[in-house]
Amino acid sequence: MSSTQIESQDTIVALATPNGNGAIAVIRLSGLKAISIANAVFPSKDLTKQTSHTVHFGTIRDGNSILDEVLVTLFVGPNSYTKEDVVEISTHNSRYIIERMLQLLIQKGARHANPGEFTLRAFLNGGMDLSQAEAVADLIASNSSASHQVAMQQMRGGFSNQLKQLREDLIAFASLIELELDFSEEDVEFANRDQLKALIEKIHQVIRKLIQSFEQGNVMKNGVPVVIAGRPNVGKSTLLNALLNEERAIVSDIAGTTRDTIEDELTVHGVLFRFIDTAGIRDTEDVIEAKGVERTKAKMKQARLIIYLADPTQDSPESIEEQLAEVRELNIPFVVLVNKSDVLSIADRANYASLNALFISAKEETGIEELKDELLAQVNLSNLNTDDVLVTNIRHVEALQNTQTALEKVLEGIVNPITSDFLAMDIRQSLYHLGEITGQVSTDDLLENIFSKFCIGK
Amino acid sequence: MSSTQIESQDTIVALATPNGNGAIAVIRLSGLKAISIANAVFPSKDLTKQTSHTVHFGTIRDGNSILDEVLVTLFVGPNSYTKEDVVEISTHNSRYIIERMLQLLIQKGARHANPGEFTLRAFLNGGMDLSQAEAVADLIASNSSASHQVAMQQMRGGFSNQLKQLREDLIAFASLIELELDFSEEDVEFANRDQLKALIEKIHQVIRKLIQSFEQGNVMKNGVPVVIAGRPNVGKSTLLNALLNEERAIVSDIAGTTRDTIEDELTVHGVLFRFIDTAGIRDTEDVIEAKGVERTKAKMKQARLIIYLADPTQDSPESIEEQLAEVRELNIPFVVLVNKSDVLSIADRANYASLNALFISAKEETGIEELKDELLAQVNLSNLNTDDVLVTNIRHVEALQNTQTALEKVLEGIVNPITSDFLAMDIRQSLYHLGEITGQVSTDDLLENIFSKFCIGK
Repeated sequence: MSSTQIESQDTIVALATPNGNGAIAVIRLSGLKAISIANAVFPSKDLTKQTSHTVHFGTIRDGNSILDEVLVTLFVGPNSYTKEDVVEISTHNSRYIIERMLQLLIQKGARHANPGEFTLRAFLNGGMDLSQAEAVADLIASNSSASHQVAMQQMRGGFSNQLKQLREDLIAFASLIELELDFSEEDVEFANRDQLKALIEKIHQVIRKLIQSFEQGNVMKNGVPVVIAGRPNVGKSTLLNALLNEERAIVSDIAGTTRDTIEDELTVHGVLFRFIDTAGIRDTEDVIEAKGVERTKAKMKQARLIIYLADPTQDSPESIEEQLAEVRELNIPFVVLVNKSDVLSIADRANYASLNALFISAKEETGIEELKDELLAQVNLSNLNTDDVLVTNIRHVEALQNTQTALEKVLEGIVNPITSDFLAMDIRQSLYHLGEITGQVSTDDLLENIFSKFCIGK
Repeated sequence: MSSTQIESQDTIVALATPNGNGAIAVIRLSGLKAISIANAVFPSKDLTKQTSHTVHFGTIRDGNSILDEVLVTLFVGPNSYTKEDVVEISTHNSRYIIERMLQLLIQKGARHANPGEFTLRAFLNGGMDLSQAEAVADLIASNSSASHQVAMQQMRGGFSNQLKQLREDLIAFASLIELELDFSEEDVEFANRDQLKALIEKIHQVIRKLIQSFEQGNVMKNGVPVVIAGRPNVGKSTLLNALLNEERAIVSDIAGTTRDTIEDELTVHGVLFRFIDTAGIRDTEDVIEAKGVERTKAKMKQARLIIYLADPTQDSPESIEEQLAEVRELNIPFVVLVNKSDVLSIADRANYASLNALFISAKEETGIEELKDELLAQVNLSNLNTDDVLVTNIRHVEALQNTQTALEKVLEGIVNPITSDFLAMDIRQSLYHLGEITGQVSTDDLLENIFSKFCIGK
């Protein structure tokens, strides 16, 4: 458990709902004095005499002045999000009322909460481990079925449970080995080295799988970067529009979604694809245009997938094959897409067999569904079990990699026997890095770094 | 009661909190099936067996997929805002989750709520009268102590209570007079004409006071339009900045307040002043500039108050007096403000005695507090009792004026006696207009017009 318990005796308050137009707002208090502070401004009923998980209608008053008619919900710790006493005040969503009410509650003894401080308290009070707390932020940020799924799974502890078991097994061995230190002059081995080796190898394997899952997890969380490349005027923009237009009809149902933020994103069966614009690629002597092509190539390198679009009215299959040489060099999966396929006969199409091309007509919007299926197939998420544990957080990957390195040292120490004290040290090092993920090991800096990215009120 | 009960058997659902960044969102259901619909997606507990005003933690599921861990609050009608069964689901504030959850609840039988439909139901089900419902929207829009105060008072029924009593007294008389119609051949008078006249005069007086209160009420609700006028380069912008800068330090504490929306507004002791920019006024031969001056004068006519700013280094007291001739013509209260007063001796100042001027130095920021006091004094809100009933709604004023006209006809019919049937008709006409305010009389069009201005979810 961390030492960051500073200020945790304070009662904190914040607006928990967004700013903006809406009917209601929720102000949240947490801490020892949450209920008594709320009670001091709520003359309608004695809140200190009410039970947990009950809602009370009444007025919030600043002296004689009525600030609002509200609903007050009580959560008596530890049966609350933060495990402390929590009060939620549901007010009319007027900025004036919210501001006055926050000021009033602060005047009565609360302190304005820091970003993520409610969730920090949930973590410090044992309500969730660190990876679960991080998943709360991911969950709020989730914008597709895939990102939602991985965040939800992590928040519900799927990830933590797996690590917790491994860590406990390892702690048991560490204890046995540390016991050997007390008897070091007798040269005994309480910890069976073969069993230890088997355990370490098992953990090593699980962690390798977790590290490997990061690529998928990252795709599910952040979307798949896709570059649409090809010579100028082969129809890249038309293709993007054809892909996006269908989707937009669905997306536009979501209140507040503005065109600006979605025009390069597309969700296919819950997986987010982020399309990266590029200038067309062609050989050029023009210095400025050459720079543009350089930039395109740099962008292509960041892609997880390249769609190479070709125009059969401009280029022969052989010419396309030549163009692909540069794409192949990048060593990134790519799909060859032959546009304007409405002008090709079946015999024509056969000429593209060696390219393994898909045929579309961006203008006529044919072949779009097949392309989507291909995009999904390329990111290979279809065979993902929804219960698979995925790592999505770069901090976790780093801790897992550090664990891995330490575990390898332990293995080495077993194979080429070293003294128990060195072995114990290496095991402790593995435990340390594993503990970083779930927060059994944490520093103020780490917590600050994680929770400062939360919004206020969470 | 209105006939707008169409569709009121539906269970409605909407997001009640704003879109945007925040920790939590609240989705609200209301209607006969609110609890059963929520129960269908909340396997954690049987919500149909829980009591009103309780909160339940659990998961919302779409089939096997967990949408979120939520808190569900139950309000069993009639103990709810709408007087129907109401369920509030508190979710993580992810747009993805919100959208999925709304879709799921709609799929289970709810319908997306229209703007203001929750409050419309509260009105239709007798939870509040129409003027109270309108006050809910005003309360949410309130942005100053004054606008908050009048909206809160109206929502809590101060306004309605006063009208309700008057209306009941009048109904009693109307009934007596209508009874006379049954005995019309016997020429009896059940309703004492002197008492009726006294009542009508009393109501007439109360309504006149209410109509008169509109000017104050409107100022409290919408702010005081103030024009800062004066010749070019007398320091109008500097004055505005001096007024606003002090305030901005306070206003900037309010999250989300952007400079754009406040730069022409200033709250002094809870009263909002809206400053209207003007070009300087001077006599000119230039056609285009003359148009600018015309526009300035047009704006001045809309002001509730004019600050006329003069520069003693440019103009003598006599010259200022001349300039004021045009201001006086407008018949709008004005304050003469002599800027750059730091260059004036006490003897100099005496020359401005006839102008009743205030002295400031916008640059040195002296005299600003005195100016604010003067602004407040001019709008004369200081002697307002906080319990005074104020009319703030143009619809109410119109209904009150129509009532007034009808009442005057009744009075005339008493003084120059007309038959009971005509008298009854005139009284009914007064009752009709009075009823329009609180909603005893309403039409679908009227309700549509009022509630369509609400946000969805309210």
